Amino acid sequence: MAKRNLLYAQSGGVTAVINATAAAVIETSRKYKSQIGKVYAGRDGIIGALAEDLIDTSKESAASIKALKHTPSGAFGSCRYKLRDIDKDPSQYERLIEVFRAHNIGYFLYNGGNDSADTSLKISRIAEKLGYPLVCIGVPKTVDNDLAGTDCCPGFGSVAKYVAVSIREAGFDVASMARTSTRVFVLEVMGRHAGWITAACGLAAEREGDAPHILLFPEVPFDQERFLAKVDECVRTHGYCTVAVSEGLRRPDGKFVSETGLHDAFGHAQLGGVAPVIAQLVKDKLGLKYHWAVADYLQRAARHIASKTDLDQSYAVGKAAVEFAVKGYNGTMPVVVRKSSRPYRWVIGKANLEEIANREKFMPKDFITADGFHITDPCRAYLAPLIVGEAYPPYKNGLPQYVRLKNRPVPKKLNTEFQL
Amino acid sequence: MAKRNLLYAQSGGVTAVINATAAAVIETSRKYKSQIGKVYAGRDGIIGALAEDLIDTSKESAASIKALKHTPSGAFGSCRYKLRDIDKDPSQYERLIEVFRAHNIGYFLYNGGNDSADTSLKISRIAEKLGYPLVCIGVPKTVDNDLAGTDCCPGFGSVAKYVAVSIREAGFDVASMARTSTRVFVLEVMGRHAGWITAACGLAAEREGDAPHILLFPEVPFDQERFLAKVDECVRTHGYCTVAVSEGLRRPDGKFVSETGLHDAFGHAQLGGVAPVIAQLVKDKLGLKYHWAVADYLQRAARHIASKTDLDQSYAVGKAAVEFAVKGYNGTMPVVVRKSSRPYRWVIGKANLEEIANREKFMPKDFITADGFHITDPCRAYLAPLIVGEAYPPYKNGLPQYVRLKNRPVPKKLNTEFQL
Repeated sequence: MAKRNLLYAQSGGVTAVINATAAAVIETSRKYKSQIGKVYAGRDGIIGALAEDLIDTSKESAASIKALKHTPSGAFGSCRYKLRDIDKDPSQYERLIEVFRAHNIGYFLYNGGNDSADTSLKISRIAEKLGYPLVCIGVPKTVDNDLAGTDCCPGFGSVAKYVAVSIREAGFDVASMARTSTRVFVLEVMGRHAGWITAACGLAAEREGDAPHILLFPEVPFDQERFLAKVDECVRTHGYCTVAVSEGLRRPDGKFVSETGLHDAFGHAQLGGVAPVIAQLVKDKLGLKYHWAVADYLQRAARHIASKTDLDQSYAVGKAAVEFAVKGYNGTMPVVVRKSSRPYRWVIGKANLEEIANREKFMPKDFITADGFHITDPCRAYLAPLIVGEAYPPYKNGLPQYVRLKNRPVPKKLNTEFQL
Repeated sequence: MAKRNLLYAQSGGVTAVINATAAAVIETSRKYKSQIGKVYAGRDGIIGALAEDLIDTSKESAASIKALKHTPSGAFGSCRYKLRDIDKDPSQYERLIEVFRAHNIGYFLYNGGNDSADTSLKISRIAEKLGYPLVCIGVPKTVDNDLAGTDCCPGFGSVAKYVAVSIREAGFDVASMARTSTRVFVLEVMGRHAGWITAACGLAAEREGDAPHILLFPEVPFDQERFLAKVDECVRTHGYCTVAVSEGLRRPDGKFVSETGLHDAFGHAQLGGVAPVIAQLVKDKLGLKYHWAVADYLQRAARHIASKTDLDQSYAVGKAAVEFAVKGYNGTMPVVVRKSSRPYRWVIGKANLEEIANREKFMPKDFITADGFHITDPCRAYLAPLIVGEAYPPYKNGLPQYVRLKNRPVPKKLNTEFQL
């Protein structure tokens, strides 16, 4: 088979380690010179592919590509962009094939979550239908850890480590001042539908009384009275209480707790976080002094405290994706397969995109304690290995040295404009 | 002089490195066995001294004391507790001397900020008046960096490093997704009256266009129109905008911007952060998608990313405090004296508590750019050395191993109860 080019694109929310996957794709491709020509990247993900705005990664130095392993965010840009329904309007998919054809793309590697797996699958099918030879591979990534078909998602372990470390540290802080100052501390973490990140906070509690004391999962409807009773009991027993709450916590009626019902002078709804709502509740009902934090992007960008395990897996899926591509494993995704938890052993396996697309993996029931406020031992056994190991970036003048690529464009070959 | 005991107490908000000062006090005291008997600590700071609730640090192993160097928070407990005005009611001060006398305390080391320096000064004076021989030493600590008489405050450098690292990471994240997602990211940091922590965020911006793009200092009244124009310009130029805002940002009328005027259904005032207010403003006036984070305690507890320089200085002031104590330097404080910025050289100097008590050190005018939105080169030269060096704690199973002391009480000798 003649040499063909490879297109890599990042999709959806970025992570602390998605660029390690990118580094693996580029470094591994360079080992398959007889099959893979240039490695291109979509600028801002699939948008770049649609707009024929491709980046030539061969213009980057080997040192820059290596530095991607310790650089958070999406080095080529990512996007939140949903392609139109292929059955109603296949024009976007056809456009992608047109761009692929113009640039001799023989391999398309799409690095994202559920939606991206679905998109990859559809692209692989339409390519076949249009008689265009293409190997389409999904590459897993999401901090939410809600992807089916893989034991865990590259990107999750690093967020998990960040939140567990952070709430342990904050817990020590609050404990030492509780007598005269803050009694209740609330940390809001990501994960709108799935409680994996909230659960990871629980890893910090290794001994009776350790922070965090209460976890509020999106899977467990918020029971205000039971929560307040638990906070009260915790403060009486330990002198203070630390709470980790998912941004996606819902009331029994299904509404997000973060929908505060607050309005400003102009009548605008206050789009607040859930942490201040929970904290205010504790103050109003129990009269306890509170503090709250919202980690937001800090958690998913925190390359400085990335998990070595997560980093290794992120690199491994990128490497495997290229190997799958040259083997012609169209419509597949490299996934993490757990061989054992203690000691932790994992390998890269191969899943079909059909098994992954449009599914979501929630916390199993037996991962949450009967009272709904913490994680169980099976959950701990699952999560613990994912945060093991530190993988510090290099520092200069006290600051981590993250790389910015040149991101040189590939000259356009089509004369057609495409409206996004 | 006969052997006398030393009492160490932590005061006010804790930091990532105040326990390194505690370690230095205990380790150094053990070198002066002919002058210093036991090292006691006040449980929950000065409250422990008033209530005769003292901790015997000799019950801790050398390994535990060493581990304090990498453990955030206040290991013996700290408090926010203001003693009564000595001129109106000297009873609390007299009680302290009574407790000191009962336990043969010859040295009192008080580790805190401005208020603590004032308290130390008053204790040293009343001891003299009551004919009780005591050497009273203030030991500097505050994340706010607003203590007079010292070039910088132990505790500040680590917060500075945390916020600079965090906003750099978040900036990379936002930049890579701005085309279709968040355009404006707002990070709220501590420092109610002084903008030092906000300024430290600015260190992350080393090149034109780097995050953070806008700093909102408590020293600069918030000019909404100019701010919005700056955000708009930044988004047009760079595609996105990152903002670091002090919790203490005020409107031109002196009111905190965080006083939102929002009320919930019960009429409770919303005690929100300033970050969501700024973010909502950007949304309402410019129509840009936003995200915001409030670091709160995470920033001052973040021992995992502490500054090595800060750690060294925190240890050095603890060591010097004991040396000052045995030399009889009553009413003094060891301070950081900068010898040069490039290369950074510092030594420990001696200041009198009169020069420090009840003063606040704000950002000099020439540290803020003319437009009020960033830091100047002199500010950068001042701040840069303070975040240099990493000093990682040890990890086990992916989590930092922080020590919890036994904190065994010293048997009480007084039969009197004291009402706090």
